[in-house]
Amino acid sequence: MARWREELERSLEHLAPAEDVRPGRLHRAMRHALFPGGKRLRPMLCLAAAELYGEVGGTALHAACALEFFHTYTLVHDDLPCMDDDDTRRGRPTVHRAFDPALAVLAGDALQTLSFEVLAGCAPQDPCGPGRLVAELASAGGSRGVAGGQAGDLAAAETPPDAEQLDYIHLHKTAALIRAAVRIGAMCGGARADDLEALSEYGCELGLAFQIIDDLLDTKRDGEQADYVKVHGKAEAREAAEARTAAALAALGRIRHRDTAVLHSFAEEMLKRNV
Amino acid sequence: MARWREELERSLEHLAPAEDVRPGRLHRAMRHALFPGGKRLRPMLCLAAAELYGEVGGTALHAACALEFFHTYTLVHDDLPCMDDDDTRRGRPTVHRAFDPALAVLAGDALQTLSFEVLAGCAPQDPCGPGRLVAELASAGGSRGVAGGQAGDLAAAETPPDAEQLDYIHLHKTAALIRAAVRIGAMCGGARADDLEALSEYGCELGLAFQIIDDLLDTKRDGEQADYVKVHGKAEAREAAEARTAAALAALGRIRHRDTAVLHSFAEEMLKRNV
Repeated sequence: MARWREELERSLEHLAPAEDVRPGRLHRAMRHALFPGGKRLRPMLCLAAAELYGEVGGTALHAACALEFFHTYTLVHDDLPCMDDDDTRRGRPTVHRAFDPALAVLAGDALQTLSFEVLAGCAPQDPCGPGRLVAELASAGGSRGVAGGQAGDLAAAETPPDAEQLDYIHLHKTAALIRAAVRIGAMCGGARADDLEALSEYGCELGLAFQIIDDLLDTKRDGEQADYVKVHGKAEAREAAEARTAAALAALGRIRHRDTAVLHSFAEEMLKRNV
Repeated sequence: MARWREELERSLEHLAPAEDVRPGRLHRAMRHALFPGGKRLRPMLCLAAAELYGEVGGTALHAACALEFFHTYTLVHDDLPCMDDDDTRRGRPTVHRAFDPALAVLAGDALQTLSFEVLAGCAPQDPCGPGRLVAELASAGGSRGVAGGQAGDLAAAETPPDAEQLDYIHLHKTAALIRAAVRIGAMCGGARADDLEALSEYGCELGLAFQIIDDLLDTKRDGEQADYVKVHGKAEAREAAEARTAAALAALGRIRHRDTAVLHSFAEEMLKRNV
């Protein structure tokens, strides 16, 4: 895992345009958002899924970077003054504070484009080629995925969401991309349809558990309305996080003849961290 | 041409998510930006280039729509309060005026994602498959393409650009995507490398002519600093538009055994309109 992380950072460093490449200010803004990173959960899940099929070479690393570029774009736009209006992220000024809102819009835009550029260059074991990886990321990230979940989040700021609306938001805003990360990794390794289905379920449940745990850890609880603890209370949130993690592990159990230990530990450690 | 235009509108209508698909407000904002459209220059160029190789079927139509989705995303973000702060486009309120800035950010984001989703589903004659189309659009649209040109535009608002900076901005902000539209159309039809090279030059010169003519037609000339007429004067702008158009036609002349009449007329009509 530590070695994957090192290789991932090296690949991100390599694939993100250098600061001295024109337009330098835009590239500095993109790199400000990318480095230093957080947990890199999505690319690490992509690598772990690829590893099930013996594939952690260049293709899976590139796909993992594409996922991190896409995720980072959503953070940059989420932080904008007209969105969450956040001044800091991971203890540093957000892109629009370190630069300006116009450049933050462009940096997010260009990070999204970069994610598809990198993915288009992948040569997965999957017989459908990179087109299928691009389709997977785009459907998870677009208006019926991440962007749709964020639109639901905006609506929730006006009218507090009910349980169904909360599920919609978490499923789209958070779980869709985590699920896609696992699926894309598996596709890089050429996973068969039945394995892909089990891994989709694992990714989706893990993503939902991740969001609930995030809400449990969030002590501020002021801005955000689409919050599991606010809607369901703390006790129910704890139960739900455990149930989602158990469901993720059960899905993993359906995969035969592969060593799923790393994906297993992802789920267990996530839960231990918090509940 | 009129038939292509009809088929294009029908395809755009079909590929853009319906307003009653959840999240409805986001989909309404995306459609507000898309319909009714303008000249649809980029998708029409894509279709005309595909037609050289006998390919105006589903694949070229899908690719044409992807180009229009991408172009529309750049317009929605360009109009934002923190960018050009425009209240109207084509005589109607901009997306952030008809809805709000947060939803306009998301609508632009989701239109970009949709462009790659649609392109990933294309089955071009090109042996490299949809991956090459995605790579083409992404490199034309990203930080070393359209987004880079827009970053140059932002910088020009601070410090008026010199001739070299103006060329950089126009080449990236405008010509890159028009060039990509022609190339992607040709790839859908399976164009060979030497034709692709000639068509790249045609698209690039046409894109530069288009921008210069746009600057000649712009009578306001207040906000925009990266303006050919402002930097070079009216007489030189007229000469440059003619020279760029002539260069586009010369590039087209290098293509053998294909009927380039439609691409020819694109360039001539563009010039006639204005100079």
